Amino acid sequence: VDCTATAELNDWYARWLQAGVHVVTANKHATSASMELFRNIRTPPTPHRAHYFGSATVGAGLPVIDTLRDLIQTGDRVHRVEGILSGTLSYLFNTLTAERPLSVVVADAYRRGFTEPDPREDLSGADVVRKALILGREMGLTLEEADVAVESLVPEGLRAAEGSAEAFIEALAAHDGAMAQRLVEAERRGRLLRYVAVIDEEGATVTPRSYPLEHPFARVTGADNIVAFTTERYGEQPLIIQGPGAGPAVTAGGIFADILRLATYLGAPS
Amino acid sequence: VDCTATAELNDWYARWLQAGVHVVTANKHATSASMELFRNIRTPPTPHRAHYFGSATVGAGLPVIDTLRDLIQTGDRVHRVEGILSGTLSYLFNTLTAERPLSVVVADAYRRGFTEPDPREDLSGADVVRKALILGREMGLTLEEADVAVESLVPEGLRAAEGSAEAFIEALAAHDGAMAQRLVEAERRGRLLRYVAVIDEEGATVTPRSYPLEHPFARVTGADNIVAFTTERYGEQPLIIQGPGAGPAVTAGGIFADILRLATYLGAPS
Repeated sequence: VDCTATAELNDWYARWLQAGVHVVTANKHATSASMELFRNIRTPPTPHRAHYFGSATVGAGLPVIDTLRDLIQTGDRVHRVEGILSGTLSYLFNTLTAERPLSVVVADAYRRGFTEPDPREDLSGADVVRKALILGREMGLTLEEADVAVESLVPEGLRAAEGSAEAFIEALAAHDGAMAQRLVEAERRGRLLRYVAVIDEEGATVTPRSYPLEHPFARVTGADNIVAFTTERYGEQPLIIQGPGAGPAVTAGGIFADILRLATYLGAPS
Repeated sequence: VDCTATAELNDWYARWLQAGVHVVTANKHATSASMELFRNIRTPPTPHRAHYFGSATVGAGLPVIDTLRDLIQTGDRVHRVEGILSGTLSYLFNTLTAERPLSVVVADAYRRGFTEPDPREDLSGADVVRKALILGREMGLTLEEADVAVESLVPEGLRAAEGSAEAFIEALAAHDGAMAQRLVEAERRGRLLRYVAVIDEEGATVTPRSYPLEHPFARVTGADNIVAFTTERYGEQPLIIQGPGAGPAVTAGGIFADILRLATYLGAPS
């Protein structure tokens, strides 16, 4: 059971699985690294002697990956997966207004512990890109990190990793105008901005997008995740899953559910 | 695999399971009959030699029951399950307006094949009561049909089972005023009516309820189901699942996913 957030274990997963050691993980690194590594873990030429469970890598305890796998394994064709996959970025965009600019919202979230220790990690979109890679690959796409079109919210001039988080947030204020202008433009068209991953047969994008007020993504509040699956079966109306997708309790719940599923796979009563 | 809608098999499920025959079903009758029958199937004193899968009995292919079971088995405390559980009643309430009264909407849905052959079966709430019983019992509640407070939408005078569906719909028009008045009253308070099951530690109710426009239940369109789980872990923001919850393709998808899960329980690679 891997509850770390390190990439140091990446090469071990496939070896463990081949040796008959089951893997349950909330760690996104291995399945979002290279496509080759993903295949070694999830679809090796000869099936592993053990089971891999990574439900908690996207959406924590929300049934995102399990639902996607069920759809695909039962022969549905998944056309599009669209989601707000970062609790932190969900909170930021649900709180941003023209009067409450990005740097203020980031500073507040940082002080309250809602961001990574370095908020640049959230704002760069890197965490969302990892989740998009995992979902795209579970859909059967061949997808490398370089294939994901990502729009970082860290302004060009502030991307150098040096400098403290506080110094970064202070410098961010000079760039508030650009985001405020996008908000106002969206608002003028009756829309709200959200930071969203879209994965379809063409590939994956991770960018801010605007949604009309009546769209489920516009109604998201707090730090909720939301994922919409548009498929052959769920064509006119997507299948939607929404709720808190990060935090210790819901992540532990996702991990524990995987462990219990493993027990059933190994013969325990259901 | 039981894809019928008959109650004739109710007594067979527990016998099959005890004999080592796995059961996969979309048929609500057995687990929504008496509490004793439910216990014989789901929580017998000595565990069955076989597995029971009933994911498709609530929400068809939507991961409603699996999510509820995961929450409970991993030690979460489920405070409240609230849902629009009937595609037909979802459609009716999403289409009803003061100018488009109940009898007109029912007649239209009936002609388009969206209702049961006898629309009184939808409007009585009986189908929703069955789903509420299944969810409540999966939550661990002791719940008989008589414990569910249900508000039927079939007016008192029209409850006798005699008379054709067409005659019923025609007679329904005389009762449109009462529902129209409720709609207008809700609207005056900025709210919309939905036909909803609520299950909590107190019991279960199945009635029309009003929701503010920004509430996820008010945003539901088409014939979508929606279910919100409020739990110890998902306390401030519930876990929500939404999408089409009836129809041949999505029901077959739910059944097939259960069959594949069974295969994994029996040793197939995951």
